[in-house]
Amino acid sequence: MLTLFRYNWQVREEWFDWCEGVPDEELIRQRIGGVGSFLRTLWHIVDSEYSWIHAMEGKPDVQLPFEDYQTLCRVRALSNTCRPEIRFVLEKWTPDWDSKEVHAPWRPGEAFSGGHVLRHVVAHEIHHMGQLSIWARDLGREPVSANLVDRNLG
Amino acid sequence: MLTLFRYNWQVREEWFDWCEGVPDEELIRQRIGGVGSFLRTLWHIVDSEYSWIHAMEGKPDVQLPFEDYQTLCRVRALSNTCRPEIRFVLEKWTPDWDSKEVHAPWRPGEAFSGGHVLRHVVAHEIHHMGQLSIWARDLGREPVSANLVDRNLG
Repeated sequence: MLTLFRYNWQVREEWFDWCEGVPDEELIRQRIGGVGSFLRTLWHIVDSEYSWIHAMEGKPDVQLPFEDYQTLCRVRALSNTCRPEIRFVLEKWTPDWDSKEVHAPWRPGEAFSGGHVLRHVVAHEIHHMGQLSIWARDLGREPVSANLVDRNLG
Repeated sequence: MLTLFRYNWQVREEWFDWCEGVPDEELIRQRIGGVGSFLRTLWHIVDSEYSWIHAMEGKPDVQLPFEDYQTLCRVRALSNTCRPEIRFVLEKWTPDWDSKEVHAPWRPGEAFSGGHVLRHVVAHEIHHMGQLSIWARDLGREPVSANLVDRNLG
């Protein structure tokens, strides 16, 4: 499972790099589908990953309002800031966490299994990166590759 | 890993259902990005999954040319036809397959690890379903949900 997270982080870094070459107004422009813009999508996947990992740990949710992350630089910094804590949690993962009961503050009264939460976080990011690839082509630009087998993931 | 395949199959079924409610000309219309149309995307994920699973087994590749699958009904039938064999292979999966050397006829001279191949197939489908979700919104329709935690996946 950690390999799929490392795949996502690598793809995400490449999308951050890709965005560096795109005018800011294109990154914040409202688009059809998904959560509406390149920048908001990147913020959303970081926020979502961090929230679910906190929920896994039984910690309170940390609010990371998009209004505080209105530039590519800030969203990338947020991603880098959250990463070590997320990696630390994932690296202590043992198979019994798969059945661990997880409660998310934003879904009161519900319980999720730890295994499904991790799979959800992985699938969530890949799904949104697929959306970016369409918007990239709309801009006439080649998107970041989603290919997994050609990556050095150990 | 099998859970992620079951997630993909469930989402794929919902996309097939979704497509039933869309005029045929919209399913084959050439769109910007991805592999170009709803129908071709659905065919492509089935073809890709089947090809990699065959490669995992060391079997020769089976050609499933898109020209033979030009209707939703045919692509859906192809998906249903391939499923039992794919499920059978995945259900015999043991952890040592993770390091199994896989050769793909369409990538001569290269070797891939079994674990990476499975992750690749999973990520590949999620990525393309993300693309469909943008095209769905372009059509003014609500896409199939990509949510994993709200699905009954056992």
